[in-house]
Amino acid sequence: MSMGRFIVFEGTEGVGKSTQIQLAQEWLATSHWFKTLSKNCPSLDSPILATREPGGTALGQELRQILLHSKEDIPAIAELFLYGADRHQHIETQIRPHLVAGGVVLCDRFTGSTVAYQGYGRGIDLHLIHQINDIATAGLQPDLTLWLDLPPAIGLERTRQRSSTGDRLENLDLAFHQRVYDGFRALANQSPEQVIPIDAQQNLGAIASDIQHHLNQKFHLWYGS
Amino acid sequence: MSMGRFIVFEGTEGVGKSTQIQLAQEWLATSHWFKTLSKNCPSLDSPILATREPGGTALGQELRQILLHSKEDIPAIAELFLYGADRHQHIETQIRPHLVAGGVVLCDRFTGSTVAYQGYGRGIDLHLIHQINDIATAGLQPDLTLWLDLPPAIGLERTRQRSSTGDRLENLDLAFHQRVYDGFRALANQSPEQVIPIDAQQNLGAIASDIQHHLNQKFHLWYGS
Ligand SMILES: Nc1ncnc2c1ncn2[C@@H]1O[C@H](COP(=O)(O)OP(=O)(O)O)[C@@H](O)[C@H]1O
Ligand SMILES: Nc1ncnc2c1ncn2[C@@H]1O[C@H](COP(=O)(O)OP(=O)(O)O)[C@@H](O)[C@H]1O
Ligand SMILES: [Mg+2]
Ligand SMILES: [Mg+2]
Repeated sequence: MSMGRFIVFEGTEGVGKSTQIQLAQEWLATSHWFKTLSKNCPSLDSPILATREPGGTALGQELRQILLHSKEDIPAIAELFLYGADRHQHIETQIRPHLVAGGVVLCDRFTGSTVAYQGYGRGIDLHLIHQINDIATAGLQPDLTLWLDLPPAIGLERTRQRSSTGDRLENLDLAFHQRVYDGFRALANQSPEQVIPIDAQQNLGAIASDIQHHLNQKFHLWYGS
Repeated sequence: MSMGRFIVFEGTEGVGKSTQIQLAQEWLATSHWFKTLSKNCPSLDSPILATREPGGTALGQELRQILLHSKEDIPAIAELFLYGADRHQHIETQIRPHLVAGGVVLCDRFTGSTVAYQGYGRGIDLHLIHQINDIATAGLQPDLTLWLDLPPAIGLERTRQRSSTGDRLENLDLAFHQRVYDGFRALANQSPEQVIPIDAQQNLGAIASDIQHHLNQKFHLWYGS
């Protein structure tokens, strides 16, 4: 038995992260990989854990309420700390135990979102962002990040169709979301081995199929054929 | 008009911080300093702001609930981040504006409590504690810290008389509170100019009078006679 694998889905609002994580989970459960993955984590009920930030724990749910719906003005640094608290709790109580048991974790957002939203979006010094991310993760890094690359205006339009009121982040202006997008693009440019861009302007099935292609490649590398 | 002054009361549970902050506030309001202090902050309703951590803001109240009453196990680093979020919000929305306007802030707990509880008590690396404290405060330091020095067993006995159930911190064992106490003592030894020990085994009036003595000294230094 070896350590599991940590796969992160990143991107701005409405790019299809939740949709594609679900499709990837369904595909993995019926693919020929499932047997290999299951063998690698005999102690787990299921080899695949799909989860999300913020909010993967009870503390996370409370913080998610505060972060997405607070009517009080939350200074950027306080927001950064709250995401750090949520991430640390989420890692230590859910992600790391699943990985240590040999399972695969699919996670909706991770440290890249902090760089993009709090760093590029809110303008917090990137050095400080990395300090907080490093403390929160205690060194845990994704084995693969899939960045769903979509012009932010299109994603925002999709989320507006989903609900008429929106949350704190969705209601920020397009310039903010454009900066966040630039943050994700910078991460993909800096780490082409770790962060793979996926063209999210395609239809659901074509995006899912691109993602399966990259997962197949990595799983061959990690688990053999 | 000059920058105000930031005075912090520190110590383990039940040493008398809340009691002595109230007595100090009442004393200041009737002492001959009140006129001088008021002149220094014409824009404020009152020159003296008495406040506390965690919980000086609406966000702080929510975090205080989580921190003191969560039934979930909160990892030490997540706890550290939550205190950081509360402190940053509290500083930026309440403490710093009052100081910038020239007022005096009396605060129940500050960064010393993080060093003592999360560092010495929980065992988080002190370098990491200082990193988080520095980010949360953006450099703001108390002009004076009054450390109410009392054997932790006595303070805990007092809080047990106050309520029969206790909160998450009060219910930790005496060994934990002894480590926290050692943390405060280390801070007082390291910074004798900034952190003044007050013998908190005395009766209320004698402690209040010691505190008034030190406040008188500092106010002479800061504001003249
Ligand atoms: N490829 C796509 N083309 C068109 N609409 C999509 C596509 N992927 C997702 N959607 C729709 O866009 C909205 C946002 O998708 P979602 O998966 O919730 O995004 P995210 O989790 O990234 O915010 C949903 O209503 C979803 O059905
Ligand atoms: N000097 C003292 N001697 C005896 N009891 C005290 C003294 N100071 C405070 N108390 C009592 O001890 C309890 C804790 O005091 P409190 O001011 O709430 O402490 P803290 O805020 O440091 O936890 C209260 O019941 C208070 O009345
Ligand atoms: Mg989603
Ligand atoms: Mg108190």
